[in-house]
Amino acid sequence: MADVLYLDDLKVGDTFRTEAHALDVDQVTAFARQFDPQPFHLDDALARASIFEGLAASGWHTAAITMRLLVTSGPPLAGGMVGASVQVDWKAPTRPTDVLHVESDVVEVTPSRSRPDRGRVVLQSRTLNQHGVVVQAMTATLMVPRRPA
Amino acid sequence: MADVLYLDDLKVGDTFRTEAHALDVDQVTAFARQFDPQPFHLDDALARASIFEGLAASGWHTAAITMRLLVTSGPPLAGGMVGASVQVDWKAPTRPTDVLHVESDVVEVTPSRSRPDRGRVVLQSRTLNQHGVVVQAMTATLMVPRRPA
Repeated sequence: MADVLYLDDLKVGDTFRTEAHALDVDQVTAFARQFDPQPFHLDDALARASIFEGLAASGWHTAAITMRLLVTSGPPLAGGMVGASVQVDWKAPTRPTDVLHVESDVVEVTPSRSRPDRGRVVLQSRTLNQHGVVVQAMTATLMVPRRPA
Repeated sequence: MADVLYLDDLKVGDTFRTEAHALDVDQVTAFARQFDPQPFHLDDALARASIFEGLAASGWHTAAITMRLLVTSGPPLAGGMVGASVQVDWKAPTRPTDVLHVESDVVEVTPSRSRPDRGRVVLQSRTLNQHGVVVQAMTATLMVPRRPA
């Protein structure tokens, strides 16, 4: 774990890689029951007959795991990881056997004009499985404090 | 619950409104412990000293509840609610006392050129609390089957 990073510590091209998270059927179906109760996230036989051709995690589950990985082993941003907006593309199904990790690049660092104590960082994150397949691509706009004078 | 809706049944301007979901502190902290373990989602005293000025649900929790409401009482799409990509803006904090519902508009309906059995629907959804405040705005691109001939 590095020291916390302020806006002043970040630059375009900085990269980060998280630890890994192993999924299983129980996690996939527990999340789906609570937040996305559709057959292809709940039942293997029904999922095989669906567009997913097999049990698949909810895209929101993939997104939530991505957040957990970024918070626990991604860039240690001062003030935490606080997003204002995000674009998420689900590129391939996340499977119950997947082991996911996240790779991120800083693509924009912009001090605020109106708020001298903070700025905006745009972080592009790819969530990959153990085969190197990108299951999710995400672009997040984060609020990051400046280093106190 | 209406009959299922195929691409052919949807047109720009169609609107949908879901039922409501009541949050509480246990839901907020349980989600945060699992997917977004940051102080302002876990501890009221620490949250009061944060940018959120009080305990706030993870934005991913708001997104997941939005999905649950859309799946269980939103547009009953044939084939289910299958998103390819989504843009999410978190407009205001979601609080543990909030009662959320979702209002959606169809803004685009496009038959696929390469796949005659399906098309793309763009759905704009606003997640509102009991005071009518929009806590999240989301634009989702969904895959929807055409009515079988």
